[in-house]
Amino acid sequence: MSRYADTTPEPPYYAVIFTSQRRGGDADYEATAERMVELAARQAGFLAVESSRGADGFGITVSYWASLAAIAAWKADVEHLRAQALGRSDWYANYDLRVARVERAYTFDAAAPDGE
Amino acid sequence: MSRYADTTPEPPYYAVIFTSQRRGGDADYEATAERMVELAARQAGFLAVESSRGADGFGITVSYWASLAAIAAWKADVEHLRAQALGRSDWYANYDLRVARVERAYTFDAAAPDGE
Repeated sequence: MSRYADTTPEPPYYAVIFTSQRRGGDADYEATAERMVELAARQAGFLAVESSRGADGFGITVSYWASLAAIAAWKADVEHLRAQALGRSDWYANYDLRVARVERAYTFDAAAPDGE
Repeated sequence: MSRYADTTPEPPYYAVIFTSQRRGGDADYEATAERMVELAARQAGFLAVESSRGADGFGITVSYWASLAAIAAWKADVEHLRAQALGRSDWYANYDLRVARVERAYTFDAAAPDGE
């Protein structure tokens, strides 16, 4: 998964920047990660999510939200709480999570006549 | 490269979230990307950068800065401007760039006694 619902409105809105280093393999990880995207997308205030992980196991996921309240509700989701616990016990060697207010946004598309 | 100078201070500070889809191969890309990290790290107000790109060519780079003025100065750097132009003409099918104010940050390290 790279982008999911990759349209975000005009700022301001919020971003959750999650950078993580995976440990070794765990078959449940991919399925749970996909499930979390599905679940997040059903939350009120969800806007989009983008994710990338390189061959070195370092990955970045950025999810976009309409409000801090929407982020707080997603953080407290029961199934998400279980995944968060597995993340700490099994999946991640370390991670950083940052909540940020998006103030400006630009886009470029080489296939568009004016690049936007 | 995954993390470079991965220590950021207590918020608030700023993040530039750059999500991009690469086109096909270009030998100059990797060298220029590394050079841009080196150059950025020399800018006043630079804090850190994290980057990941998957096998599908979709990547996310987040750089962290002390102020909006520091971001503006880096955006206007002459060598960086040349790289930005190559990005649009040669390297990226599309990209999104967002400037955000980091308001909260958490960290987890499985190797630390208390996880932080």
